[in-house]
Order: sequence, then C-alpha cells, then structure tokens
Amino acid sequence: MNLILFSRREILDAGTVAIDDGRALHIRNVLKAGPGLPIQIGIIDGPRGLGTVRSVDGSSVTLDCAFEASRPSLPAVDLLLALPRPKVMKRLWAQLAAIGVGRILGVNAARVERQYFDTHVLSPECYRPLLIEGLQQARDTRLPVVSIHRRLKVLVEDELGEPGDQAARLLADPTARNSVRSAVETSRAERCLLAVGPEGGWTDFEREMLHAHGFTSVGMRPRALRSDTACIALLTLVHEALADAGSR
Amino acid sequence: MNLILFSRREILDAGTVAIDDGRALHIRNVLKAGPGLPIQIGIIDGPRGLGTVRSVDGSSVTLDCAFEASRPSLPAVDLLLALPRPKVMKRLWAQLAAIGVGRILGVNAARVERQYFDTHVLSPECYRPLLIEGLQQARDTRLPVVSIHRRLKVLVEDELGEPGDQAARLLADPTARNSVRSAVETSRAERCLLAVGPEGGWTDFEREMLHAHGFTSVGMRPRALRSDTACIALLTLVHEALADAGSR
Repeated sequence: MNLILFSRREILDAGTVAIDDGRALHIRNVLKAGPGLPIQIGIIDGPRGLGTVRSVDGSSVTLDCAFEASRPSLPAVDLLLALPRPKVMKRLWAQLAAIGVGRILGVNAARVERQYFDTHVLSPECYRPLLIEGLQQARDTRLPVVSIHRRLKVLVEDELGEPGDQAARLLADPTARNSVRSAVETSRAERCLLAVGPEGGWTDFEREMLHAHGFTSVGMRPRALRSDTACIALLTLVHEALADAGSR
Repeated sequence: MNLILFSRREILDAGTVAIDDGRALHIRNVLKAGPGLPIQIGIIDGPRGLGTVRSVDGSSVTLDCAFEASRPSLPAVDLLLALPRPKVMKRLWAQLAAIGVGRILGVNAARVERQYFDTHVLSPECYRPLLIEGLQQARDTRLPVVSIHRRLKVLVEDELGEPGDQAARLLADPTARNSVRSAVETSRAERCLLAVGPEGGWTDFEREMLHAHGFTSVGMRPRALRSDTACIALLTLVHEALADAGSR
C-alpha cells in the first residue's frame, strides 16, 4: 500500500477520518506511524493528499487530512476484454487498476464460455476491493469504471458510438505486423481503446466486425500470451506510446 | 498449449514419441486430433517441429515427429530479480517463460525476507513444469536458465563479470526519468540484463553497488507496480526496444 484510499463519506466535516480496519493495521504495523507522522492518502475518485496521524488508540487510527486541489486524470486507456476464466479475471482486477485503465468493458465472444458470466468475480463486491488494492499500490485514486456486456455485437455496433479521433481503437492480434507504437502514432489520438480477445482468439466474424468499427490490428512479437499476461504487456505498450506521442 | 514440448529422451530413434500424460489428454480432448493430423511440437531447448498422430489408443497417443534444422534463439533479455513472496514467485514462472527470458537470477536483498528462500517454489521440481507451461503457451522451446543467489554483493561483484557492450544493464526504478527505450538505444547492446528490486525497493547501498557495476536506472511512469506486474511490464518494454533497435 503506497497510498491509503478512503471513500468520500469516510471524511468527516472537520477533515478527519477514523478507521479501525486493515488500513489502520497497515498504518500501525507496516508504516509504524505514530502521532504527528504524515501518510500518503487519497479519496477514491478524488484528490490525493496527506494525512497526519492524530491518535492511535487500540485498533483505531484517527488522521487529519489535507487534500490537493485537483484529482489525478483518468488513465488514457480503456480495455475491452473478452472475459477470461474467473480465476484469471480475479487475478487481473488489481493488476489492471495498478497499471492504469479508465474503463474495463468485459464482454462475451464466441470462444468465451457461458459460465464465465455466472461468477461472483464479476460482482462489484468482489472486484471493487481488488481495484482499490491496485490503486493503492500504484498511488492512483481513479477507480476504473467496469461494465459487463453479454453481446459483443450490441456493444460494438450500438454502445461504443462512432469511432472518433479522440480514441484510437486497437485490436490485439498475435499475428498482426503493425506495432502498438506505430498505430498510436498514426492515429494522433490522446486516448486508446484496446480490445483483447479470449484465449482461443476472436472468430473471423468478430475480427471483421471490430475492423468495420474502426479497430486496427496490432501485434506484439511472435509469442502467444495468456490473456492476463497479454493485457499487462499491451497496456504497458499503449501507455508508453501515448506518453511518447504526447511529449512530442 | 500452443505447442507441445517433449524432452529429448522422450523421442525414440525412429522419431516417434508415445505419451499418456496431460499432453496426450490435451491432444485427444482439446485438439481432438485423430490419426494423420499434424500437431505443433518442440523439444525442450531444441527445435520446433510437426508431429503427426500415428495412433490414439485409450489414454496413450503416438506421434511421428519431424523437426526443424535449428532451434529458436535464446530470448535476448535476462532478469535479475530480488525474490518476491513465494505466492507471487509461483505465479511468475510461467509468465516469465511466456514473455521470454534467457536467464532468471533470483537474488537476495536487504528488503527480501529470509524465509522467501526456504520454499519449494525455488526448487526445479516446482518451477520447471511452470516454465514449460509458459513456453508451450508462447510457442517457444528455450527453457530459461534459473539460478538462485543468496548474496547480491557476491553475484554483482564476482559472478556477473565485467559490464560489457554485449548486454545493457538496466535497473528498474520507479523514480527514474530515463526510459527503457532510450537506455537500450544508447547502449547499442543486443542483449539486456534487467534488475527488478524487492517490493520495498533496493536500499541506497544496493542501488549504488548496482550503478557502480554498470547498471543504468530506468523508469516507467509514475506508478509503483507490484513485483510481478512490474516484471511483465518492463520485460515487454525491453523486448520492444531491443526489437526496434535491431530493425534499424
């Protein structure tokens, strides 16, 4: 935990917060912070700030909080992800939040098994704490917005909207020659929507539909990666390409 | 499994192989391959090839094998990794082999806990099958060479050898401004040794020692990542930078 996050309603009017859960334990046992010591904090979807320990009393910790004027901007990459096995998805939530995504659109595809949808791993009760864990690791406050879509066609044709100049649409494809970097440079976009397919790949029909709606295939190297490894690797490349394009 | 790997001693003189383990199950139940059908295969640390199903008999499968003349080259990146928690290390083996590393040097550091060394996760019986799983995913045959080092100082000062032109030495540091890409370009090296520190970071002493032995600090973005996510992200950037430098 490199940053301790609170929800807005935990902050009392006077700017203090009192906690007695795992975060209090972390402050006492890992940070070993006593009265007067500053701690990096943040409000979920709000600004970062500094908390000063006012008191440690048994299992409870009280902090005086001061927050920055503005909140971090939303990560510039959104992820359209054909749902992987629940075990893999569960591992991914914290990693995705840590590496930085604005939205996570979990979607069905021909090679996604039906039962992948009937799992508690897709419930906010499961993924919200994992996303917060990832944000606390990465010192971010912006919670990825998660939505689950049972029909790829409806999502792509009706819900995504027109492909615009603002967001490049990339389709991860192990066989593609075009690199993430050159696709981002060519698009001149400031945001990116990255589509990552199921373990067995998209069908030709799905790939053509995505291409017809503005997605450009991008490859990595001639290595087929598991869905979770591929997400981390590709999001890293997209972030780097956007940052380099922005600094030019 | 995008490639089925055999050890060299499993290949009989006539170029046939008979198996009745998980690989046979995969051929029968996932690939649904009957007699005459070709399957992508490889020899661990040897060439890739094609196997033709000769017979399927109960739980056992016999293949006729034909191999390519040469084997894939070793991935151009080695990883010096301060040992993470055993649970994290266990998850990493397959991912590292999939993303491609030549050597994995697991090492102690001030902020690595002693008990991380006393775990079956560091035994070949544990990690070899996981590395093979990663290679089978990525269609590679070259098994990463693993070594475990209890003293960072001995490794860096005595065992790594002189920093040469052949391998750039990079030190992952969340606070560094220099990018992986520019460090690789500047070095003009064809290989890279990437050092990734423990969750709590290197100490100043350790960082200075690594700098004194040719390591250059490289950063990513202002996000602190968990050790496993950081490894995947950084290895991706190093591979991409080496590939781009090689194609220029």
